[in-house]
Amino acid sequence: MRKLALALALFSGFGLGASEKGNSEDMKLLEMAKQYFKPLPKVAENPVTPREVKLGKMLYYDPRLSKSGLISCNTCHNLARYGVDNLPTSIGHRWAIGPRNAPTVYNAAIHIAQFWDGRAKDVEEQALGPIVNPIEMANTEENVVKTLKSIPEYVELFKKAFPNEKDPVKYVNIGKAIGAFERTLMTPSGFDEFLKGNTDALTEQEKRGLKTFIEVGCAGCHNGAGVGGHMFAKFGAITEYWKATYPYVLKEKPTIKVDFGRFGVTKNEADIFVFKVPSLRNIEHTYPYFHDGSVWSLEDAVRIMAKTQLGKELTDQQVKDIVAFLKALTGEIPKHALEVPELPPSRENTPKPQF
Amino acid sequence: MRKLALALALFSGFGLGASEKGNSEDMKLLEMAKQYFKPLPKVAENPVTPREVKLGKMLYYDPRLSKSGLISCNTCHNLARYGVDNLPTSIGHRWAIGPRNAPTVYNAAIHIAQFWDGRAKDVEEQALGPIVNPIEMANTEENVVKTLKSIPEYVELFKKAFPNEKDPVKYVNIGKAIGAFERTLMTPSGFDEFLKGNTDALTEQEKRGLKTFIEVGCAGCHNGAGVGGHMFAKFGAITEYWKATYPYVLKEKPTIKVDFGRFGVTKNEADIFVFKVPSLRNIEHTYPYFHDGSVWSLEDAVRIMAKTQLGKELTDQQVKDIVAFLKALTGEIPKHALEVPELPPSRENTPKPQF
Repeated sequence: MRKLALALALFSGFGLGASEKGNSEDMKLLEMAKQYFKPLPKVAENPVTPREVKLGKMLYYDPRLSKSGLISCNTCHNLARYGVDNLPTSIGHRWAIGPRNAPTVYNAAIHIAQFWDGRAKDVEEQALGPIVNPIEMANTEENVVKTLKSIPEYVELFKKAFPNEKDPVKYVNIGKAIGAFERTLMTPSGFDEFLKGNTDALTEQEKRGLKTFIEVGCAGCHNGAGVGGHMFAKFGAITEYWKATYPYVLKEKPTIKVDFGRFGVTKNEADIFVFKVPSLRNIEHTYPYFHDGSVWSLEDAVRIMAKTQLGKELTDQQVKDIVAFLKALTGEIPKHALEVPELPPSRENTPKPQF
Repeated sequence: MRKLALALALFSGFGLGASEKGNSEDMKLLEMAKQYFKPLPKVAENPVTPREVKLGKMLYYDPRLSKSGLISCNTCHNLARYGVDNLPTSIGHRWAIGPRNAPTVYNAAIHIAQFWDGRAKDVEEQALGPIVNPIEMANTEENVVKTLKSIPEYVELFKKAFPNEKDPVKYVNIGKAIGAFERTLMTPSGFDEFLKGNTDALTEQEKRGLKTFIEVGCAGCHNGAGVGGHMFAKFGAITEYWKATYPYVLKEKPTIKVDFGRFGVTKNEADIFVFKVPSLRNIEHTYPYFHDGSVWSLEDAVRIMAKTQLGKELTDQQVKDIVAFLKALTGEIPKHALEVPELPPSRENTPKPQF
């Protein structure tokens, strides 16, 4: 309410307690920011129905999507932890350790593609990957469909979510439903308020950080509604990334694996070390950082990025300001995301967990 | 509303569509049932404050109680699955397989003691066990306290929950807070309505099942507000239990382990094969059954119990009726249990997950 009043006051030419100069600088920053960023949409585009979302949320939280009956989407993309597991790389079936850091599902639906290497085109396609990945949920398409078909409550929900289909309980529809749920997982923040014109929604330090973020060049890749997530880029544009991160990795592990990124998908040499530029929304909560989860400190991550991507050494003040801005990207988790649905019981013909 | 109207009508001598005879039989059954059972309390006794409950719920859902940072109380006692993992025995740190089936946390606070062997006296003490059990969460008291102390939001919540303590972030208080949360996890059902006098809250088959349940002798052990949970008893009072369950176990595993139960705690020979009588509330959802999770079918479990505990072979109709009654024990999950709190982020001095 206070913010709204201030915003209205600013639009009508009255700055409450802010100098004219302050206001005009704020407006300049706002105009500059608008060239790079956009507020989050309410729902990522794609027509989704409440019935798909309802089914998708239930599937998201149901560990029976996994072979073991223990691992759900929420295990690695914990919605109470801003959609991640806060581990360097995830733990899957029989404690297998995955090769890359689990990205957050919040705001993921607006990204250019899914996974660090962009190998899935959207959240609907992405959701189907981990279910059958042997080191993640380790299930088979057949077994998960059989599981869901054995539970009458699920059959009913699939019928309602896909009313025009004869045989709605099928693998591709699991992805559609989970994707529909993920499209509702937007986390608007103070930065969105700012972009909509309320220049008081950010503190002075956060604004300074935003300005630095743009001027130093971060916004060259981390831009758009996701503040990242909308393009691919080479990690290590200026200097090899692992030279910056290996001191961190070697603290934990005796070896360091160099990840070729998108090259693995396209086999195009130009894609060696190319990854999707991660969204920086909620970055305060989605540590540790980078595709390998090598770095736990946000300040360190900012320094490494400036060095490897832009060839710049930031001052302590610049780092602090940028980090302050990045923390202003922490958004509000939509209430329904954390209202977990009761899961219907298995039946006698439900396939048993295998672990 | 309909049920309330009927109950009032019955009390005032008018049965809507039910014969006089039916009513008097219902009242007889109700009187008989009241000798064995009690409705659930709203909260299991022990003074608990909303602040303790709030902290306890956050801790319950926080995977940082575990060494790996992956396993929370909710991993094995999934509140969306009636407080269990629906596995024969649970999966813990580095995929260790536990020796006994995870009991539900719903209504557990009213039990005579905690764990299958009763080795913890209450939920406050119980909650502290798995955190430091090497095959469950595998943490140390020191590390978990250090973790919580590093997160200012937790320090604040502990101060509020334990306002008279100088150093409130301590191991024993983790158990107190989680216990306080668990004391609110009561799931009243149609059976409680019945016990309170509304004889229409159960169907004819459910009432027949209740009558059979009492007459056959099940209520000799499964009684009280928990319909079990209030005493210890030897599994296999008449015939060795594993002779009844091994055909089920051998389907899954090449060996069968005979569990000595409470003897492991007391070293008293009289306690060989003695376990806490499990509560049958929500039993429809808490499969697979018995301390070893050997049996997935509720009908089979009922038959085995009649045989091993009472020396009786039940007819198909008796089994079906008892199962119908047991399903009427499925209660309502309290809304707040499934409203997951956002978890505050770790800080730079938070101990890193080890896996």
